[in-house]
Amino acid sequence: MTCAERAQLAMMLEVCAYPKPGNVDRCHDYDTTRLEHFLGSMIFSRNALDEAERLGASGSVGKIFHSAVEETHCHAGGNTHFGAFILLVPLVMGGDIPGALKVVAGTTVEDAVLFYRAFGLTRVAVLADDEMDINDPSAEESLRENRMTLYDVMAYSAPRDMVCREWLNGFALTRKGADLLHDYGPGSESISKAFLALLASEPDTFVAKKHGIEVSRRTMERAREVIDGVRDIREFDELCIREDINPGSTADIIIASIYTALGEGWEWDS
Amino acid sequence: MTCAERAQLAMMLEVCAYPKPGNVDRCHDYDTTRLEHFLGSMIFSRNALDEAERLGASGSVGKIFHSAVEETHCHAGGNTHFGAFILLVPLVMGGDIPGALKVVAGTTVEDAVLFYRAFGLTRVAVLADDEMDINDPSAEESLRENRMTLYDVMAYSAPRDMVCREWLNGFALTRKGADLLHDYGPGSESISKAFLALLASEPDTFVAKKHGIEVSRRTMERAREVIDGVRDIREFDELCIREDINPGSTADIIIASIYTALGEGWEWDS
Repeated sequence: MTCAERAQLAMMLEVCAYPKPGNVDRCHDYDTTRLEHFLGSMIFSRNALDEAERLGASGSVGKIFHSAVEETHCHAGGNTHFGAFILLVPLVMGGDIPGALKVVAGTTVEDAVLFYRAFGLTRVAVLADDEMDINDPSAEESLRENRMTLYDVMAYSAPRDMVCREWLNGFALTRKGADLLHDYGPGSESISKAFLALLASEPDTFVAKKHGIEVSRRTMERAREVIDGVRDIREFDELCIREDINPGSTADIIIASIYTALGEGWEWDS
Repeated sequence: MTCAERAQLAMMLEVCAYPKPGNVDRCHDYDTTRLEHFLGSMIFSRNALDEAERLGASGSVGKIFHSAVEETHCHAGGNTHFGAFILLVPLVMGGDIPGALKVVAGTTVEDAVLFYRAFGLTRVAVLADDEMDINDPSAEESLRENRMTLYDVMAYSAPRDMVCREWLNGFALTRKGADLLHDYGPGSESISKAFLALLASEPDTFVAKKHGIEVSRRTMERAREVIDGVRDIREFDELCIREDINPGSTADIIIASIYTALGEGWEWDS
């Protein structure tokens, strides 16, 4: 299996895993974003992922990221894998977490500019008062003036975005999710368990951007109650869907965890 | 969208479509073959499909078919797309149905030999009394002695296999399925409707091989009752699953129909 295929397999396995409270899975769609949109995006990401693998550490993260977003943004389901690509592109370029860390450390101002252009292609939740709002045409100029690399952009976003934070903390949650998959054993049931465990230990920042930190913390506590056996997982799932709480950042990280675990011999198909 | 991507999209859309009586879908697995196995096989078919598109009519159907089966037979879910590749490989090589007909007409004895070798890699339902049983080591010799091309092999199997029959009848059911998709309109609901309509008009030969022609005819009649409004589709679905009736050949043809309809502008993502 190539690294690009492994990344696609990770995206496929994550979206199919069930139950996965609040998110699209094989039994739940959102009105505008459905299972097929996620799987379509996964199919269309292949060329960018192949390029990431082919170029390795000598490639441009920004350029490959821009290609991935551009190629997958061809369906009516809106943004599906923007956050996942923030992790998968360096992971595929570097092969594994240590390789990805070298890749992110070497990013340039040009990578940052291309990342912002990719941002402009899609509709990703941003904070209303964000100084680096992509809708601001001076953002690109500001990046160049301040000589901000893509790594610096991730550092800027890290306090409010757990996916960007992975670049700074050594892919800590990606690693944690992969370890959970190894602990839980082979098969897709382990993916929903790892998702729930991560959700119960970190407030999801996508939920925080959409609904505020209080809702994000409450979601974390509810996930903990499911693990403690005092709340039913299907009731929690329906509650999240009813309240439009979709922990998308946790899902992005679990994709990177599956990619990592697969590379370490974790079996998906038993 | 390339033809290879279109073929992958067709495989993805078919397996996700629900309800689809008796078959794996986003809400149903079989014990040994699950949704993820079909989607994994779809991911791993990419290299063979890219090769089919790159070589076009100058490629070898047998060689590409063998690669597709070899590359996708790497998971624990058994045979998933053998029948689909019989249709998709010439369709991707030729681009569309008229192109595929030229490709199948030009197949050679070497294509037939490679097809039989691919057969040997997987476990596909065969008739116990089939003279051309793949488990017979003299099959390859017999193909060469009788100068049988892959087209001749399909002609030999056509009376008992509706997928092979497509090579001889101008991809008639593929065409019918694509027309149904256009009639029913965009979106995945149309896929389950087209599946049901095809199932109600032709006895599925995969069901016939497994359970006999009577069961296959009865399944066709039950599908007709669903269309006529005298049987509930979910009850029919559960009945099929309980009796291990999975109309796999109809599913293979629907994949080819989706591929064809997508190439003619049918919208999957609305």
